[in-house]
Parts: sequence; C-alpha cells; structure tokens
Amino acid sequence: MTPSEEPAPVGTGDALPAFDRVLAAARRLHGVARTTPLLAHERLDERVGGRLLIKAEPLQHTGSFKFRGAYNALRCLRPAAVVAYSSGNHAQGVARAAKLLGIPACIVMPADAPAIKRAATEAWGAEVVAYDRYREVREEIGARIAAERGATLIRPYDDPHIVAGQGTVGLEIVRQCLARGLRPDLALFPCGGGGLVSGSALALGSCFPDISIHCVEPEGFDDTARSLRAGERLSNPPGGTSFCDALLAPIPGELTFALNRRLLAGGLAVTDAEVAEAMRFAFATLKIVVEPGGAVALAAALSGRIDLRDRTTVVVLSGGNVDPGLFAAVLAGREPAARR
Amino acid sequence: MTPSEEPAPVGTGDALPAFDRVLAAARRLHGVARTTPLLAHERLDERVGGRLLIKAEPLQHTGSFKFRGAYNALRCLRPAAVVAYSSGNHAQGVARAAKLLGIPACIVMPADAPAIKRAATEAWGAEVVAYDRYREVREEIGARIAAERGATLIRPYDDPHIVAGQGTVGLEIVRQCLARGLRPDLALFPCGGGGLVSGSALALGSCFPDISIHCVEPEGFDDTARSLRAGERLSNPPGGTSFCDALLAPIPGELTFALNRRLLAGGLAVTDAEVAEAMRFAFATLKIVVEPGGAVALAAALSGRIDLRDRTTVVVLSGGNVDPGLFAAVLAGREPAARR
Repeated sequence: MTPSEEPAPVGTGDALPAFDRVLAAARRLHGVARTTPLLAHERLDERVGGRLLIKAEPLQHTGSFKFRGAYNALRCLRPAAVVAYSSGNHAQGVARAAKLLGIPACIVMPADAPAIKRAATEAWGAEVVAYDRYREVREEIGARIAAERGATLIRPYDDPHIVAGQGTVGLEIVRQCLARGLRPDLALFPCGGGGLVSGSALALGSCFPDISIHCVEPEGFDDTARSLRAGERLSNPPGGTSFCDALLAPIPGELTFALNRRLLAGGLAVTDAEVAEAMRFAFATLKIVVEPGGAVALAAALSGRIDLRDRTTVVVLSGGNVDPGLFAAVLAGREPAARR
Repeated sequence: MTPSEEPAPVGTGDALPAFDRVLAAARRLHGVARTTPLLAHERLDERVGGRLLIKAEPLQHTGSFKFRGAYNALRCLRPAAVVAYSSGNHAQGVARAAKLLGIPACIVMPADAPAIKRAATEAWGAEVVAYDRYREVREEIGARIAAERGATLIRPYDDPHIVAGQGTVGLEIVRQCLARGLRPDLALFPCGGGGLVSGSALALGSCFPDISIHCVEPEGFDDTARSLRAGERLSNPPGGTSFCDALLAPIPGELTFALNRRLLAGGLAVTDAEVAEAMRFAFATLKIVVEPGGAVALAAALSGRIDLRDRTTVVVLSGGNVDPGLFAAVLAGREPAARR
C-alpha cells in the first residue's frame, strides 16, 4: 500500500472477498486438496542467512495450487457445464475439479502450451480447444463456447471464488507456522494474474498483521509490481520474453489488484537465468520438480533481490508442470527458450 | 516366511530389534527428521486398478531415509568421532546427524559415487575418503580409519540402531494409514542391504498383522529375494549391472536377513528400463525427484510385476539423490549407463 493511503479493513465495507471466504473455501477443500508440506532446510537457511520455509504446491493434486480455486468455484457455482481458458495449470485444476463433481469441462488452451499440461488436462477428462496466442483472444473464444453450450466460464484469477480457494495456500501456511511456534516476517509469492497472492494475503495478513508480503514476477511481466508502485493497473510493455509460461498475464486482475494494493508490501522481478538456477536448486536440494513460473519466488530469495537475513520468510513454490525436455535443458544449464 | 516355518513373535526371545526399538527411535527423531507425506493419486490408482499410497522419502532431510537410522545410531552411541562407508545416501545421513550432534565424521565413498552425493556429504561438513570399488574393500578401509582415529564405525544396515531408525518410515506409514482409516494389504520397499524394509516391517507387521511386505531389488542384485526363497543368505552372482547405485549390496545383512526372513512375504526384481520409466512417472505426475535405487518399488508397481488390483498398497520412494546429467538422460528416454 502507498504510505498516503489509509488501509480499509480487509474485506469489510466493499464487495471484495475477505478472510472468512478463505476459511469457507478451506472447509470445502478439506479431504479433496492436499495439505502440502512447508519445508525447512538448514543449508538453504545458511545460504540466505535467515530462516526459509518452502511451501511445496507442486505436490498439490494436478501439480499446482490452481486446483484449490477451481474446486472452490465449481462447488460454489454448481454449473451444468464449465469452460475455462488457461495456459495449463488452471486448465488442469478445472479439469480435475469438474471430474470430481461430474461436470463436463471444456478448456481453451494456447496451441503452444507445454505438452505435459495439455496431456494432463485431457487425462482428467476435459475437452481441450487450442487457439493461437498471437492471433486470437482467449476471452472471446471462452465467451463464445460458454454461450453456445450454456457453460459457465471460470476465470483464472479475477473471480472471488478463485481468490478464496487459492487463499487456502496462505491459510495452510498460517496453520503450519503456528504449529511450529513461528511468526513469518516476509512471504514471497509467484504472481501472474494475482489470485494466489491476493487470496493468501487475506489469510496471512489477518493472522500476522505485521507480515510483509511480496509478489514475484518474471522480468518484462512485472505488471503487478509496477502497478503497486503506480497505484493503478498497468499493462506489460509489448515485446517482453520469459520462459515462465504460467505468469504471462498482460495486466493485473481488477479484483486481485484491488486486494493486492491493500495487502502487499511490493513486488519483485527476476530473470529467466535466476529462475533456472532456482529450478536446479529445487531439484538438487529439495528433490521437488518446479516449473519456471513456480520457481520465481525461490529465485528472488536465492538471488539476493530482497534481504532475508535474520528474518523468517515463507517462499511459495506454486507449480511443477514442466515438459521433460525443458527441465533437462535447465538441468544442463542451457539457457531456456524465452516466450512472449 | 516359508510355509513350514512357525513365525517367532517379532523381537522377543532373541537379540533382534523389536517394534519397541522403532518406537524409541521415533521419539529420538521427533522434530529432527521430517514426517514425509504419504501421497495418493487418482490417475495412479486408475493405472494399477487399486489404491496406491506413495511414501515420499526423497523429501526427507539429506534426500533419503538414511538420515533416520544414522541419527538414531549416533544418539544412542554418542561416539567421540564417527566413520562410515557408503555409496552416498548413508554418507549424507551420517554427515547431517554428526553435524547436528557436533561429532566429527569421516565417510569412505566409492570414487565413482554420484557427484551430487559426494558434494552433499562434504557440504554437511564431513571428510570424504574415496576408494576404488574394484580394487579396495570398503570395510577394511573403514576399520582402519576407525582404529587410527578412535572413531566408531556406523554400518549402513547391519546394526540394530540403524534398523530401528529406518523403521520409523514404516511407523509413519502406520500412523498415516490409520489417520485415513486405511489398512494396507501390501507394501513394496526398495532393498539394498535390507535396513529400511526390515525396520519398517517391524512396525507394519505389528500393527497390520495380515500385510504382505515385499522387497524390490534391481535385476542381478536380487540377493534378498533369492535368499528369502532359499531360506539362507545368498550372494549376487558376479558380473551383474544396474544403474541403481544405492542398491548394489553384495549379500543380505545378517541382522536384516534374520528379520526379513520372518517378516517379508517375498522379493521382486525390476529392470533398469522399468526403473527409468518409474522415475519419469514420478517427475511428470508426482513432481518428485527420485533416484534410480529409490524408484524400484514404484517400478514394480507400474510394471505389473505384482497384482495390485483391488488392493491398498504402500509404495516407498526411498531417495532422490541423482546427478542432473543422469536425470536428464532418463527424462530423454536414453538408456542409462549401467554399473556393476
């Protein structure tokens, strides 16, 4: 938040989701989503000079946190059919949620989405419609399919049910910290459209009022960081490239930005090279497969872009859906092919 | 056990460790070892036609279960200095345990051990002494260093403290199954010297008397499976090759075999190709990095070497310390270089 701005009480006096919606989402997700581990590692702590706690959402069902919001939304809305657009993780989340609830699902995915994400979406029983990211507008395709089929569109982040569901990541972090007698000073979250960090900030900010929460984005796609500084939603400049395929949203969500401008301390940006280094660290030390977009917060921690000395910092790994060829290239230290 | 043999009550009337020693080890390890997750996955269940529960020990500190036994042994023995021989996972386990307890550690490792294992052992502060697997006998080197330095030798498996510590894997599985209201029919464990499976069988067999526990070994190194059939300890034939570097013990341990012949239903062997397929599955679906030796039980489950239909089966992933080059080769589907 900007210093001149008096913070409104979180989620009161307006239509934004509040902490109680995260708690309600947690009740719906009980026994359906996994409580993912919050991992400590001495050698990581030695490296940054502080205490790090790693939230391992690649171990979530469908390989990312996105299942949480998707299931919460479908449980709340109970649609006859569902359509979603997604580069891949929201796709899988919606597909598994729809399968569990017996709802037909159609997913609009970029034709160049990682093959592992498309295959997994289809394996959960969803129909996949591919589109050209450079010539077609996914929102239009999703709206057309929704109209044609009487399906409900589930947006990837700008939806209060989605935000509340993703917020259960933050709620679990709260519970896991309290169980260890820890109060985190900082939290670093990967950020695309902003659903994960905004929902999680509702929980973390309610229980740890002094926590400093930062979103982390790829360089060239740091629209949320710049928007937080400007106090208004700004788009990414054209021509940026990054291999963090999950984090290429063009502009912060309206709903998510309204929350984030209140709840976040700021935003950081990391390079693809720093992300690749974080993926290698997670492989060698944590034994967890992390996709590029899922590794940006760890990249910010390891690259020293924020001072973590003598602090307790939560770092969220948000997903692990990465093609084996790209993962092998990263392990070999070859500069990954950037995307735009 | 063989049908003609009357089973002795577990751990009574002889010098073998019993379930109460596993419980004591769990008390020592509380807050020091991680409770690793027991993961379910619908698509895995669909594939085998039964319910699978995956115990994820690559997420343990040091990347394998070996820390459990090493810490338990050092806590019980409180030596002034420690020496161990290991291809890598016991090495890291002893190194971290010694560091936590402030005990100087010297580890005798094969000169061709995976680089990631040697580097991690040194990063935990241990001194590493390399030896030639084809010309030197590690037991002799370990004994010489122990004599010269007044250090206590910690064997990798044939030690009741080690067996009890590794048995906490089985104890956690018991607790995690009971918390979900599940009684497993089968359990599959990777097996080198037999410490993990024997200790875990003490816990599983005590709480689930009808469970059928199998060890899984690489083809050509299935000494425990053959010994179980023969009713006596048999060595591996010379000339076998496998890339499962953690599971190349030449003959079952005396102590571990005395337990395993009572507690196990039998043993299975898998090929390197089946192991590589299991590693790829863990990467793509579980998002967990598994080393070759850590993936043999999953390989047995996925390859249909045992009928898991309509059963509840626990499958243990035992470690994740694999060099990035080898992991990248496995992801690419290239036949890994075998070892002997």
